[in-house]
Amino acid sequence: MSIFDHLYNQDRFLEAKDDYNSAKTIIIGVPMDFTVSFRPGTRFGPKKIREASYGLENYSVYADDSLENKMFFDAGDVDIPFGNVEKSLEIIGDVARDFLDDGKIPIFLGGEHLISYPIIKKVVEKYPDLVIVHFDAHADLRDSYLGEKLSHATVLRRISEHVKDKHIYHFGIRSGVKEEFLYAKQHTHMFPIEVKTPFIKTLKDLKNRPLYITLDIDVVDPAFAPGTGTPEPGGCSSQEILEVVSHFKELNIVGFDLVEVSPANDLSERTSLLAAKILRELLIGLG
Amino acid sequence: MSIFDHLYNQDRFLEAKDDYNSAKTIIIGVPMDFTVSFRPGTRFGPKKIREASYGLENYSVYADDSLENKMFFDAGDVDIPFGNVEKSLEIIGDVARDFLDDGKIPIFLGGEHLISYPIIKKVVEKYPDLVIVHFDAHADLRDSYLGEKLSHATVLRRISEHVKDKHIYHFGIRSGVKEEFLYAKQHTHMFPIEVKTPFIKTLKDLKNRPLYITLDIDVVDPAFAPGTGTPEPGGCSSQEILEVVSHFKELNIVGFDLVEVSPANDLSERTSLLAAKILRELLIGLG
Amino acid sequence: MSIFDHLYNQDRFLEAKDDYNSAKTIIIGVPMDFTVSFRPGTRFGPKKIREASYGLENYSVYADDSLENKMFFDAGDVDIPFGNVEKSLEIIGDVARDFLDDGKIPIFLGGEHLISYPIIKKVVEKYPDLVIVHFDAHADLRDSYLGEKLSHATVLRRISEHVKDKHIYHFGIRSGVKEEFLYAKQHTHMFPIEVKTPFIKTLKDLKNRPLYITLDIDVVDPAFAPGTGTPEPGGCSSQEILEVVSHFKELNIVGFDLVEVSPANDLSERTSLLAAKILRELLIGLG
Amino acid sequence: MSIFDHLYNQDRFLEAKDDYNSAKTIIIGVPMDFTVSFRPGTRFGPKKIREASYGLENYSVYADDSLENKMFFDAGDVDIPFGNVEKSLEIIGDVARDFLDDGKIPIFLGGEHLISYPIIKKVVEKYPDLVIVHFDAHADLRDSYLGEKLSHATVLRRISEHVKDKHIYHFGIRSGVKEEFLYAKQHTHMFPIEVKTPFIKTLKDLKNRPLYITLDIDVVDPAFAPGTGTPEPGGCSSQEILEVVSHFKELNIVGFDLVEVSPANDLSERTSLLAAKILRELLIGLG
Amino acid sequence: MSIFDHLYNQDRFLEAKDDYNSAKTIIIGVPMDFTVSFRPGTRFGPKKIREASYGLENYSVYADDSLENKMFFDAGDVDIPFGNVEKSLEIIGDVARDFLDDGKIPIFLGGEHLISYPIIKKVVEKYPDLVIVHFDAHADLRDSYLGEKLSHATVLRRISEHVKDKHIYHFGIRSGVKEEFLYAKQHTHMFPIEVKTPFIKTLKDLKNRPLYITLDIDVVDPAFAPGTGTPEPGGCSSQEILEVVSHFKELNIVGFDLVEVSPANDLSERTSLLAAKILRELLIGLG
Amino acid sequence: MSIFDHLYNQDRFLEAKDDYNSAKTIIIGVPMDFTVSFRPGTRFGPKKIREASYGLENYSVYADDSLENKMFFDAGDVDIPFGNVEKSLEIIGDVARDFLDDGKIPIFLGGEHLISYPIIKKVVEKYPDLVIVHFDAHADLRDSYLGEKLSHATVLRRISEHVKDKHIYHFGIRSGVKEEFLYAKQHTHMFPIEVKTPFIKTLKDLKNRPLYITLDIDVVDPAFAPGTGTPEPGGCSSQEILEVVSHFKELNIVGFDLVEVSPANDLSERTSLLAAKILRELLIGLG
Repeated sequence: MSIFDHLYNQDRFLEAKDDYNSAKTIIIGVPMDFTVSFRPGTRFGPKKIREASYGLENYSVYADDSLENKMFFDAGDVDIPFGNVEKSLEIIGDVARDFLDDGKIPIFLGGEHLISYPIIKKVVEKYPDLVIVHFDAHADLRDSYLGEKLSHATVLRRISEHVKDKHIYHFGIRSGVKEEFLYAKQHTHMFPIEVKTPFIKTLKDLKNRPLYITLDIDVVDPAFAPGTGTPEPGGCSSQEILEVVSHFKELNIVGFDLVEVSPANDLSERTSLLAAKILRELLIGLG
Repeated sequence: MSIFDHLYNQDRFLEAKDDYNSAKTIIIGVPMDFTVSFRPGTRFGPKKIREASYGLENYSVYADDSLENKMFFDAGDVDIPFGNVEKSLEIIGDVARDFLDDGKIPIFLGGEHLISYPIIKKVVEKYPDLVIVHFDAHADLRDSYLGEKLSHATVLRRISEHVKDKHIYHFGIRSGVKEEFLYAKQHTHMFPIEVKTPFIKTLKDLKNRPLYITLDIDVVDPAFAPGTGTPEPGGCSSQEILEVVSHFKELNIVGFDLVEVSPANDLSERTSLLAAKILRELLIGLG
Repeated sequence: MSIFDHLYNQDRFLEAKDDYNSAKTIIIGVPMDFTVSFRPGTRFGPKKIREASYGLENYSVYADDSLENKMFFDAGDVDIPFGNVEKSLEIIGDVARDFLDDGKIPIFLGGEHLISYPIIKKVVEKYPDLVIVHFDAHADLRDSYLGEKLSHATVLRRISEHVKDKHIYHFGIRSGVKEEFLYAKQHTHMFPIEVKTPFIKTLKDLKNRPLYITLDIDVVDPAFAPGTGTPEPGGCSSQEILEVVSHFKELNIVGFDLVEVSPANDLSERTSLLAAKILRELLIGLG
Repeated sequence: MSIFDHLYNQDRFLEAKDDYNSAKTIIIGVPMDFTVSFRPGTRFGPKKIREASYGLENYSVYADDSLENKMFFDAGDVDIPFGNVEKSLEIIGDVARDFLDDGKIPIFLGGEHLISYPIIKKVVEKYPDLVIVHFDAHADLRDSYLGEKLSHATVLRRISEHVKDKHIYHFGIRSGVKEEFLYAKQHTHMFPIEVKTPFIKTLKDLKNRPLYITLDIDVVDPAFAPGTGTPEPGGCSSQEILEVVSHFKELNIVGFDLVEVSPANDLSERTSLLAAKILRELLIGLG
Repeated sequence: MSIFDHLYNQDRFLEAKDDYNSAKTIIIGVPMDFTVSFRPGTRFGPKKIREASYGLENYSVYADDSLENKMFFDAGDVDIPFGNVEKSLEIIGDVARDFLDDGKIPIFLGGEHLISYPIIKKVVEKYPDLVIVHFDAHADLRDSYLGEKLSHATVLRRISEHVKDKHIYHFGIRSGVKEEFLYAKQHTHMFPIEVKTPFIKTLKDLKNRPLYITLDIDVVDPAFAPGTGTPEPGGCSSQEILEVVSHFKELNIVGFDLVEVSPANDLSERTSLLAAKILRELLIGLG
Repeated sequence: MSIFDHLYNQDRFLEAKDDYNSAKTIIIGVPMDFTVSFRPGTRFGPKKIREASYGLENYSVYADDSLENKMFFDAGDVDIPFGNVEKSLEIIGDVARDFLDDGKIPIFLGGEHLISYPIIKKVVEKYPDLVIVHFDAHADLRDSYLGEKLSHATVLRRISEHVKDKHIYHFGIRSGVKEEFLYAKQHTHMFPIEVKTPFIKTLKDLKNRPLYITLDIDVVDPAFAPGTGTPEPGGCSSQEILEVVSHFKELNIVGFDLVEVSPANDLSERTSLLAAKILRELLIGLG
């Protein structure tokens, strides 16, 4: 019996495995939040989601399966130079590429939504037919925001310049400017306000294609996910998003991010718990 | 280029216009909260709703239209003598009358529900056939409350004494005393608990009549609007109230108030955001 | 030794009557929370639920009836030796037995879920055919937890050892380990995730049998009830639970507890208000 | 009509005795806060101070004495008609007079500072040479405030019109308008900013005279007492005020109030705890 | 009498004058916080300090003078491109230069400490002998931080490269790395931990020289100023800083900033109130 | 260059070394809080103190020395069976003994104060002349509390039964019952209320003796350390406790604990930061 028998550490996601090599999927935190205009704080998201995962069981009632025998590794957080957007994005992209090169499915925890951009640039290099599935309250399709090309409000626009036309599907969008919806009409598939119904309808179109899913937690109503930087009333419920997530296992997911969890405004921690639960279902589904 | 080019101010509602004369509608805050018995704090409502409006876009996905070209003016807050109910109500009534005399549609932001009383007294002088549409968790139809005739809990009863019989429609009421529901049966139209279904059914009865809408934010469930003085579980969702509000543009609204937003109990600010979103839809609808 | 020896008085629930002898039902608080592993704080539940009851009316719109003429007594809180689990459970059991001996229907306010165990042991002595109706996010059917047989996570398992086989009905369960669901399949009736639909379907099976209802507030989604120790996203709404509760009057309830209200994480107090409203409906239904 | 007609019971202060007749001092809560201009919430003060008292011991290290054998009675809270200032003040005055007529020393817990006015009017009728000792961050000596003669900002001015000239001593005042300090120079004794040093110096002038002490908790710095309606940085520490209070036993106190405790802004509850500790020392000192 | 007689707006600092031309000093907010590594949120500082100023009187007990007749103008906030450090600093510098060119004394409200750098670069162009007086818990003298030359942690080092050697005086510094204290020994005047005593001693050295004062609110202990991004226990009290500020009127201040107020972590708002009070004393002192 | 180059983990105390064998001191968290009667929550203390340490520098201005070259190891948290007091204490004692057997100086982070008891029982076995230095607001010298011998309120009494008479020194005690102070007069050295002055005076008596220091964070005033379970107004400042801690390096410390940090009630996190700073000074002092 060792001196450390009664001691434990909780800094990795629930049931993360010790062995990097045999892992199929990799969790990576990205505590970046400095281009946001409303309320910063998502830098604390990755840490809190990991903590919250210990408030859940490893078994899922929804999937009748457990995290226990899933091979995933938690690589910790990306070390970000605060305030330097370009260098930060470069590092995030490098990290994504490294894991893709190793044949892993990367799962990123934000942080602000802009992080999806450097990641997807690398994923699409590997999968040229990549399809983006985008859950969000906001379109994020502006060409520039406050004069900046790189912003949480322009991230899907930037991404659209790297994937093929009509290869982005948006669900739940209930905020944006007119320009964004006109752009979507021409270049993407836009399903405003609703989430579950259009997603279920679209499922068969998405199957067997390489998918990257980017899920902004604010697609859920702030009643269910108050801990986010830009809450937008009128979203879906936690039951609805969990039902959507239960279909992920039918898809060919090659990359994923869950962004904009900002713990400070949610004393109940239900946002982080919902994020952790979404992640658990995803990880179980990825096998 | 001016010295003030890089400077801005955010004390008025999003996209409020500078010109009073050409404005069709006027926003007025009423930071009064001193007859409440449970939890004061709605005096901070008007300020917070204006602040929250900058967390929204000027464009509405619901209406496919924008605040940009709507002619409305934000007149600031009424200066209230704290603790003096009678003088406060008198001043509020005077303010309402002044704007009505100028041919404007006044939109009041509370503050407590009692403020609707002096306002409606003036509106009904101008529109003798005025119909009141009342969204609320509470009936507010008592004859007196803790010995007082003027209270947030008696406001609809007082109003009922100034409009014609059966000219009040209540939606979503899920709290009250027996006396209030008996009174409603005789003198008003009462739709308990539910909001959307009865409102949609009533729409055609309301069209083409001069309407004053008074919306107590607690008609929405405290999950979606926790920042209010007298939360009452069992209300509608934010999606539901937004769907209701999207019909306002079909009606002849001559006055409006949104009351009982109390920011202190809502760290996520989703209550103020919902209030600002309701207001945005209303302003777009009023044209 | 008097029946009130272990009880001390705080405020009483809204409309509680002064006369113990003529009371049909008895409210008893149990401020115990020390076997919980995630977040303690339910010890403040009973006090807060009573306080919150004064934010409600005595009249129920749902039942068209009032608390005014219902004969119930509020006996205060059980005096718990903090940190001593066994002695605490013994005292709670004694208190339950005393009120049952006096022919009362006991209604307990938790406190953590473990308190149901000593109570039900006494209730089943009086009603050998006792049926347990269990609303919860968590199965609580483990055989042991962190090496302990007596824990909030094992409470329904312990109870199952005292009631007849297949005499437990679970509603809304959305968290547990595999072992618990296998146990349920053999020994209880398990309705996962959903609450209202399966409950309505089961109603006729439950009628005319002696029922003990144990309601863990976390069966409701943390959007509606954030003030709880182990929030689990994906639950039902406050409207749904209130509709379920409105059917309680059709049943033969011989005991009841409402547990796991933890006020600290809910600045809006909507969890305590919902708990108080559930209790009001129950008390009106019991007559 | 009974002396308790306007009072209702909540919890009582730690070690309050059951027998009214043998009590020397009486605690009375006054949950009035509706003339305040900045942040309401002191209506919850009395309840919270009583609750906080149970976080203390009955024994005082400072006085080497205990509350146990002190004869004081907790009469509950005054039942206030919310929003009606004049009627509220009249009731408060009646309550004060009743207890004075019974030969008791009344100790009032606010609530806002305006409550001192009707109380002192009654005390000075009994003790025409009454001296007022006033601890506060604010002078409260305006003649009128926002057009009102009766306000928390005018209370000491109103009081000064009822006691003899130069019979008011102010300590710790660090906020006011010029007019107030000029008035003080002519009619009262004003010790700005500092508390302990001038109070100790003044002690011998105060001895053997009938004293009413009114202590606004904001005399203490908001670091030590953040739970107050109008915090003013730059005040004394909790150690300092406790040292001041330890001298109260040397004085002939015939009435006392502690006002402006507003629990909502103080999650740590240290403001209520400090208030309860001040009260404990006072009660021990009164014997 | 105008229609706007009962309406008011509170978006400028208390008693700010309407006329830019006759103003001697100018208040400018700088809501920038994106290079911070610990907790962002100071972008909300300027707005909150202005709001808090209405919780104060215009008269100062300390100075026996009032803001009423002081000629200062509140220019609003600088419009910052979030996430773009270089462009932000450039704009801030431009704003500073514009006001200096107009002969004004600029007073900046942060925002993060990095904003002092572009400002002081412009001030020193106008006053080559400029002396910097620096109140702070942190030395901010690193050469680079996380690989960045421009950061809140390097700001005084950058500034030191623009002012003459030994022209910086630090007070209250209680956190830093060894390198910073070695640098200070050679190039600046460093007074660690203590604030009042060394400042009073240094007063005569500072008189009659052109001074820029940069005051990081975290020089005050987090008990008195919890609303800041990088709280460091062991600081001075609010009484102490106010005494220091009362000497500012003896100095020749040509520019000033107060930075790092982060309102979110301070429900009591005492940090913003302290900041507003410091500003009031400063503005009165500047005449 | 490795794939993990840009990734990091922050679950250990700042600058903790990787090598257990060469470590002189060991940090161990003890997340136990279930015998507390007022407010649980200290189980989150160890995790938060570690997190807070990253808000500090490794260099100390006070000691002019750095953590960098100090050999200490962070062993994580003890795995506690929640609700089982006896087994928990047994495990804590075993952990303490194991590290003592390995020749380490153990440093425990609570958790509630009761944890000191099993630790000190093991330390005194190794050092029979052990002296206890006790910083606390509360005497904790009761013989039993709510009928329990093992409680946070009895811990020093239990300890006194294991060390030699007059081998305990209490500082800062400002709360207790008479019995405790009588016991202290006979068996320990009691310095009430004050901390720094009596500690400095006692320093020479303590030198060169084997010391165990137990520091309850509530010895500091709740203004400086609001995040604690039983706040007691009237304590020392953070400056004062840091000055006291700066003398620890002159003493022969063989064991240490810092208990009762309860993060939930302190949004500013200054309590955890103060605890981490005390720990940093201690670790630097231990060499």
